[in-house]
Amino acid sequence: MLENNNTERTSLEELGEFGLIKHLTKNFAIHNKSTLKGIGDDAAVLDFSNKKVVVSTDLLVEGVHFDLSYMPLKHLGYKAVMVNLSDIYAMNAKATQITLSIAISNRFPLEALEEFYEGVALACKIYNVDLIGGDTTSSNKGMLISITAIGEAAEEQLVYRNGAKSNDLLVVSGDLGGAYLGLQVLEREKEVFKVDPNSQPDISMYSYLVERQLKPEARKDIVELLNKLDVHPTSMIDISDGLSSEVLHLCEQSEVGCNLYEDKIPLDPTVISTCEEFKMDSTIVALSGGEDYELLFTIDQKEFPKIKGNPNLTVLGHMTEKNEGVHLISRNNSKIPITAQGWGAFKSE
Amino acid sequence: MLENNNTERTSLEELGEFGLIKHLTKNFAIHNKSTLKGIGDDAAVLDFSNKKVVVSTDLLVEGVHFDLSYMPLKHLGYKAVMVNLSDIYAMNAKATQITLSIAISNRFPLEALEEFYEGVALACKIYNVDLIGGDTTSSNKGMLISITAIGEAAEEQLVYRNGAKSNDLLVVSGDLGGAYLGLQVLEREKEVFKVDPNSQPDISMYSYLVERQLKPEARKDIVELLNKLDVHPTSMIDISDGLSSEVLHLCEQSEVGCNLYEDKIPLDPTVISTCEEFKMDSTIVALSGGEDYELLFTIDQKEFPKIKGNPNLTVLGHMTEKNEGVHLISRNNSKIPITAQGWGAFKSE
Repeated sequence: MLENNNTERTSLEELGEFGLIKHLTKNFAIHNKSTLKGIGDDAAVLDFSNKKVVVSTDLLVEGVHFDLSYMPLKHLGYKAVMVNLSDIYAMNAKATQITLSIAISNRFPLEALEEFYEGVALACKIYNVDLIGGDTTSSNKGMLISITAIGEAAEEQLVYRNGAKSNDLLVVSGDLGGAYLGLQVLEREKEVFKVDPNSQPDISMYSYLVERQLKPEARKDIVELLNKLDVHPTSMIDISDGLSSEVLHLCEQSEVGCNLYEDKIPLDPTVISTCEEFKMDSTIVALSGGEDYELLFTIDQKEFPKIKGNPNLTVLGHMTEKNEGVHLISRNNSKIPITAQGWGAFKSE
Repeated sequence: MLENNNTERTSLEELGEFGLIKHLTKNFAIHNKSTLKGIGDDAAVLDFSNKKVVVSTDLLVEGVHFDLSYMPLKHLGYKAVMVNLSDIYAMNAKATQITLSIAISNRFPLEALEEFYEGVALACKIYNVDLIGGDTTSSNKGMLISITAIGEAAEEQLVYRNGAKSNDLLVVSGDLGGAYLGLQVLEREKEVFKVDPNSQPDISMYSYLVERQLKPEARKDIVELLNKLDVHPTSMIDISDGLSSEVLHLCEQSEVGCNLYEDKIPLDPTVISTCEEFKMDSTIVALSGGEDYELLFTIDQKEFPKIKGNPNLTVLGHMTEKNEGVHLISRNNSKIPITAQGWGAFKSE
């Protein structure tokens, strides 16, 4: 749980609630001029002048969303922030503040919490986000993290899920399936460790996948890239639950259909080789894996020249009229419906 | 746990996460023009035009902050919102939005969650607040509630903890100690019930106390009253941890001292009689009880005529120079230091 097992262990009770918050947040600097007052009063005070404010919130539960047996606490802190910022970027907005509440059992010494907050602080620094409030409390069992992320955007800049039109191109950033496979690698190593605690696993060949799982990056850079390229998506969502689930959200809310081409799905070479090793279908992994935190968006066809050849962006297909439905066009050119059950329905074809 | 034990029980798994959120939030109306987009996209979108934005967050954990054996779920939903709005009012701001995340074990049927959300909806309706986002997830054990409250205020309207000056009057709304005694009554009945499950307790004589504990109200009305009376507090905080703890926060952040008069502490007659019955000191209960969610604030002495005789407000004492310290002036006119340990230190005098 602790990266350095030789560190001192200080009990949380020694500090008390106010002392604990003060101690953990003392190194957090304020980066945004919209943050007038951060931690220390009944509420933080923000000033967005004439910008619109976007707000998103997520809850992460030990044993459901993360496993501390292979998730270092510093990475967990970093990832918890990423998961939330990703939702702000999916609005084409700039993330500016977060609040962070955690419930923890007393089995965590102060030093463990410090590691967690180090990850949070690193994420805040790199992504230029201010920690403006939070709550720390004890839990009977396990750890729970609740983050609310706040961002800003000019009204005309905001991108919703419901603006896709028929014939728009469907575009995704980065590549897919890596985070899910990273989890499979870590789960396998955990089982090996249970059987033989002296085993020294070599997971260096999976380092890309493990990093996608343990230290994902929210695509702030893509929001900035689109702005630089003067591309304004008609709809956008981040990929947290898997490509198929997110495509369905865009189609449902925009009232359109979609043709998604299997051979266009961007896969890292490690994803392909590891799928072979695990005897998994890489298309299913990309469609249903989740936790990639890439951005999925639609653009008017006229904007295509602006993104053509950009190594960060891949055109996956195009939107259709609603009555044409949502389909995967497979490599052998058959049309497979994408349903809410994702790969379950896919398998039954 | 369920108020009506004859209701149907629907398992949460039947609905799935998106179905569940849609189902639970379908009856929530939008009340504020600052809410441009509520639930349903990656993030909510808000517009505060030239107002400042205030943000506060709280985490409530079953077994730590609430006990479902005597806390009806509808009340819990209501109280969870109150606890958070109270922080917004303590900034002298108007509460406008909340996000709500809950982690629940599968032992909760859908109908239990519906009751919880009924309480949340009632609070939102009465206090004119919009539910704009959230997350619902499973937990291995128990229930956990995370709420972030958002509000707005003109800059000159905001009141911080750090503006109190020497000679300012210390004022509190309502009366103190009731919520803590309500908890004592409920805990006692729980013990009686454990011994004799057929006992039919008559707690009607404690109804004020029990209501203070189970269904507190955040003091939106006091913020409106102060505005109407044209009183601008120099500092303000809400009473969640007990009067002594909050006075110390104001004194520390404002760099002042305080003389607080024991005989001025407003106590409901039921608090006095129940303290006698429980053999508790009513001053200690008021100083350290907590959960009253009254507003504690300071005003310039010149403003006193505006609040004089108002039945909602009580002058408790006055601020002093910092080096004079923070003291309770007892009924027999002795000067007792108020320390961070609250009634522990108080007892040792």
